[in-house]
Amino acid sequence: MIKVGIVGGTGYTGVELLRLLAAHPEAQLTAITSRKEDGLPVADMFPSLRGHVALAFSAPDKVDLSQCDVVFFATPHGVAMAQAPALLAAGVKVIDLAADFRLKDQATFEQWYKMPHGAPQLLEQAVYGLPELNRAAIASASLVANPGCYPTTMQIGFYPLLKAGLVDAGSLIADAKSGVSGAGRKAEISTLFSESSDNFKAYGVSGHRHTPETTAQLQRHTNQKVGLVFTPHLVPMIRGMHATLYARLTSPIDDAALQALYEAQYRDDAFVDVMPFGSHPETRSTRGSNMLRLALHRPPGSDMVVILVVQDNLVKGASGQAVQCMNLMFGLPETTGLQQIALLP
Amino acid sequence: MIKVGIVGGTGYTGVELLRLLAAHPEAQLTAITSRKEDGLPVADMFPSLRGHVALAFSAPDKVDLSQCDVVFFATPHGVAMAQAPALLAAGVKVIDLAADFRLKDQATFEQWYKMPHGAPQLLEQAVYGLPELNRAAIASASLVANPGCYPTTMQIGFYPLLKAGLVDAGSLIADAKSGVSGAGRKAEISTLFSESSDNFKAYGVSGHRHTPETTAQLQRHTNQKVGLVFTPHLVPMIRGMHATLYARLTSPIDDAALQALYEAQYRDDAFVDVMPFGSHPETRSTRGSNMLRLALHRPPGSDMVVILVVQDNLVKGASGQAVQCMNLMFGLPETTGLQQIALLP
Amino acid sequence: MIKVGIVGGTGYTGVELLRLLAAHPEAQLTAITSRKEDGLPVADMFPSLRGHVALAFSAPDKVDLSQCDVVFFATPHGVAMAQAPALLAAGVKVIDLAADFRLKDQATFEQWYKMPHGAPQLLEQAVYGLPELNRAAIASASLVANPGCYPTTMQIGFYPLLKAGLVDAGSLIADAKSGVSGAGRKAEISTLFSESSDNFKAYGVSGHRHTPETTAQLQRHTNQKVGLVFTPHLVPMIRGMHATLYARLTSPIDDAALQALYEAQYRDDAFVDVMPFGSHPETRSTRGSNMLRLALHRPPGSDMVVILVVQDNLVKGASGQAVQCMNLMFGLPETTGLQQIALLP
Amino acid sequence: MIKVGIVGGTGYTGVELLRLLAAHPEAQLTAITSRKEDGLPVADMFPSLRGHVALAFSAPDKVDLSQCDVVFFATPHGVAMAQAPALLAAGVKVIDLAADFRLKDQATFEQWYKMPHGAPQLLEQAVYGLPELNRAAIASASLVANPGCYPTTMQIGFYPLLKAGLVDAGSLIADAKSGVSGAGRKAEISTLFSESSDNFKAYGVSGHRHTPETTAQLQRHTNQKVGLVFTPHLVPMIRGMHATLYARLTSPIDDAALQALYEAQYRDDAFVDVMPFGSHPETRSTRGSNMLRLALHRPPGSDMVVILVVQDNLVKGASGQAVQCMNLMFGLPETTGLQQIALLP
Repeated sequence: MIKVGIVGGTGYTGVELLRLLAAHPEAQLTAITSRKEDGLPVADMFPSLRGHVALAFSAPDKVDLSQCDVVFFATPHGVAMAQAPALLAAGVKVIDLAADFRLKDQATFEQWYKMPHGAPQLLEQAVYGLPELNRAAIASASLVANPGCYPTTMQIGFYPLLKAGLVDAGSLIADAKSGVSGAGRKAEISTLFSESSDNFKAYGVSGHRHTPETTAQLQRHTNQKVGLVFTPHLVPMIRGMHATLYARLTSPIDDAALQALYEAQYRDDAFVDVMPFGSHPETRSTRGSNMLRLALHRPPGSDMVVILVVQDNLVKGASGQAVQCMNLMFGLPETTGLQQIALLP
Repeated sequence: MIKVGIVGGTGYTGVELLRLLAAHPEAQLTAITSRKEDGLPVADMFPSLRGHVALAFSAPDKVDLSQCDVVFFATPHGVAMAQAPALLAAGVKVIDLAADFRLKDQATFEQWYKMPHGAPQLLEQAVYGLPELNRAAIASASLVANPGCYPTTMQIGFYPLLKAGLVDAGSLIADAKSGVSGAGRKAEISTLFSESSDNFKAYGVSGHRHTPETTAQLQRHTNQKVGLVFTPHLVPMIRGMHATLYARLTSPIDDAALQALYEAQYRDDAFVDVMPFGSHPETRSTRGSNMLRLALHRPPGSDMVVILVVQDNLVKGASGQAVQCMNLMFGLPETTGLQQIALLP
Repeated sequence: MIKVGIVGGTGYTGVELLRLLAAHPEAQLTAITSRKEDGLPVADMFPSLRGHVALAFSAPDKVDLSQCDVVFFATPHGVAMAQAPALLAAGVKVIDLAADFRLKDQATFEQWYKMPHGAPQLLEQAVYGLPELNRAAIASASLVANPGCYPTTMQIGFYPLLKAGLVDAGSLIADAKSGVSGAGRKAEISTLFSESSDNFKAYGVSGHRHTPETTAQLQRHTNQKVGLVFTPHLVPMIRGMHATLYARLTSPIDDAALQALYEAQYRDDAFVDVMPFGSHPETRSTRGSNMLRLALHRPPGSDMVVILVVQDNLVKGASGQAVQCMNLMFGLPETTGLQQIALLP
Repeated sequence: MIKVGIVGGTGYTGVELLRLLAAHPEAQLTAITSRKEDGLPVADMFPSLRGHVALAFSAPDKVDLSQCDVVFFATPHGVAMAQAPALLAAGVKVIDLAADFRLKDQATFEQWYKMPHGAPQLLEQAVYGLPELNRAAIASASLVANPGCYPTTMQIGFYPLLKAGLVDAGSLIADAKSGVSGAGRKAEISTLFSESSDNFKAYGVSGHRHTPETTAQLQRHTNQKVGLVFTPHLVPMIRGMHATLYARLTSPIDDAALQALYEAQYRDDAFVDVMPFGSHPETRSTRGSNMLRLALHRPPGSDMVVILVVQDNLVKGASGQAVQCMNLMFGLPETTGLQQIALLP
């Protein structure tokens, strides 16, 4: 059994990690820290876990995380960079669900996240935790930077086209939509039910932190200079993310070949479902599951490819992907503990 | 492996059965019938099942359900009564999720369901499938009538008080609230998103079919004449049911004794969670799980006990309970395949 | 034109007052105070008001509210009691949407609201602002205590039965359900979209501040001792309130007479709609309007009357009712500026 | 008073017309037809209208619409083309909220709407009812084709850029999102609450009827060949439409000049609100009102202009715009009866 520690389990990625790990046949929840909730049984905060998780939150100074085999950070940006060096030195593997180790370039990190980086020496060794595009590196990693939710959809959606050199990498557009849980479990007016329900809006159109992360990763797969316009929107639903991706073809390709390209790319990926050409994937078809689904379209009279991508932002977009990385890091089958079927309706 | 057939898998209890049975370690989905969808892969209708269920719908005349060990009816009222006799005669166990066999009294059935009963000879042998109150009978049953969703909450909520003779059985009130999926997957204006969302209303206040079912069952546990006012409401949520139950104490009892009564009653029931006295259970704490949670209250200055009960109407209120019955009927541990943790948020 | 001041316009009752008063033909928005938002145009906070409200928030010390004809307090409990004495002394009428003047009994107020009362000398002169039951007193009042949202539904629902002496006043039950906007525009985790959506729960079952307010008011209409069990619930909708009221008949009355009793009582009330006997009013039929609708039921085989009451908690349950009181206080037709038709769908 | 008839008032655009016209100071609701609901009081179907609309539905053959001054068709495609010729011949003005007269080209209509056109002789005289771009023609029209909801947002959003010749008209992208009421009040499974809630999906990506309508209209304003990729999505909200428009600049322009271009264009349009540069308009800021709001963005490092446009699909996107046209056709101030403030929250 893998002894698992979680730092910061009071947010949505935290409770989702608990849900997945409590049912994981090879994981043993060992410690969960929260400065504020010291002593509170986890199931008192999240009654869905009653009968499944007996653990209580511990103050960070009361628990020795170095006894764990792996520690997940489900914390705001800045926490993992402070604690990871000591854990790594003690031989503990680290998976950070925040952004601390997603960007290789320290200056870019500091510009977008408005904080000095506390462990720049780890940036090089940190492995970007997107198994479908980076499996081997993850398997041998000690420190994994779990991707952002939006970047996961954009990379898996654009990758085959970029790799094949079929599109203009300089004029990519990602019009993306996220459920409200993506904003986290924070007391804020803008995500109150009465503010977010029965409403739709864009946000961060003039600049979002997931743009540099995605651009840097996509750049690895093409010699063209990547240019990405990324427009996030907030959808009145709890879970779910939908990316509508637009890429301009620079070489002709027919629909069947396009479809074949994607099917070949993801044939062996258990968590990427390439739906039939022209499908309209729904976010709910992934609710609670680690599956990402996508479908290809060619709007008539245009040189555009439109790729529709859906996932559950808290699972494949966060905690499920983190567990998928853990499985790889510990030599387990990648799907271990991640076979939940989506909840529909 | 138990060979399982499903009649009518195109509704919400059907897809929920598929979700649960596809992950059940002892069940093998063998056939699913639908006259209208003959040949359609189940996963084309419910993309959440892609990769999990390979079965296609078959027209009823193309499949021999008598090869199954058990057949679930996830059909409108009236279908199971037509097909059950032949299946039972062939040695197949039958679990009906509709109302055909819930009422022992044929006249009452025909009055409330406005149809003649097609198999009155089976009413006596049919077993009411509420494991917590009827476990032994279910274990040896061939024909199980799965309870209605509302009746499950009302019976589990009122039972300990009635059995202990502590309340006036003649003035029970159940103010109950259901998510919209309880209305089924039928093309109707009243349950359109634009009609049901951001709205709340009562319905059927002057008479609902779940009243005679509940009254008849409750009557088994008391010598008093049971009187029940049942007021159902529609909540703008997909899944979830909340019953607010009111009973008038006829004997004094303090809060601790009341709590102890319920805890003792349900101590060995894996799917009934008696929360601490004064708690406010939330429907979402059961979303996608087979758990029913309840909590007791004593409003100040009153002789009333208020019992708050929540469940997922499609799981403990329907398909999960049906699988729980199947487990009992086949001698499996009652919780087999039913350990899913609720999806929160 | 009536010069209107608003203290605390940054919450939901505040913006609703602004919506109603901006369209009111006899009201002139003169000042709106907010310590925190001094200088911010109101329409920057609430873009729905762009083009309709030119006013900006002012710090309290920068504006002389004594120049107003009437001041509304859309503030937390405790603010109006501090400022009302000086305004009243200056001849300004005051309408408080909070609870400061709803309870005549100072001790009861202090017990339930956990604060000393700052202006107990005004409790006697304060008039309870429920026009349908207190019209004459409001018309001549200087200080009006606008009722709570729940109490409005309970009083209008129970009143005709109590006044006619037809029911047992000691065993009233109000099972009430409110949209999330009733919790206000406050940064809190429990009313986040991801916590409140697709969920249903009761709250405050062991004691809610609206119980003493309602009991005290109902007591005015009966010689029996009023006993009320009040169970509030939270519904995943923005606006809307539904009260399901239960009263036990002590004298026989047939359905037609019952219906006639309510129709006669509210015949001249423009904002109370007695629907046909056996109707199921929907909250959305009142969305954005000042209308309260109710319908009567007699569950079969029971001595109970069930009264279903709906309103928009922010309009008839708060700001609309306050404007209705203002109309009365200034001798305007009661419906002035309040004729908006509900938004359906 | 303008005598108004409505054909087909049982859908969402119908009830919205009723809401607006019942409060319109110059309109008198005279007749409303429905074959199926003959004799039913309108307020029995839509209780929000109780006390405001006394009219009942009439079978078409029982009412003489030629006595009206104007008739609105809130019907499926194909009805207006059958009845408009006789009404026009009788001197009645006609406003069609469906697509019968939106496309000048008969063949294009018949290709997209799969029906022969019943009144091709009227196509030439029909006036496209988008007041902001076609005001003078509407004022003198007898037959108005009210625009589609999506096309309204796209045209108002793209128009200033096209007219100024600043962008590549051949590579426009409109990623648009609509509330579920846009699908109408039809009994269909796909728009049930349990299917649409907590879900997000695209639809019609490979071809939607609003593309040819929009393309034809946009083409009037530019000499370039218009190319439009239009991707509609379904949002789990009742009302509201958000278009995220992408256009590639072919001439440099700074942000201030861009903003000035839009402000100048729409300065005199009461129902177009150009928000400050970089704003994120929310659909709820238009809920129930006839206002359309837009804001401009320039994503960093790109030659794209992003225009965010919101409206209420049932008001500015349908019935409100139709009333706006009526006002123009009858020489009334354009804003008559359309000054409702949006309902927020």
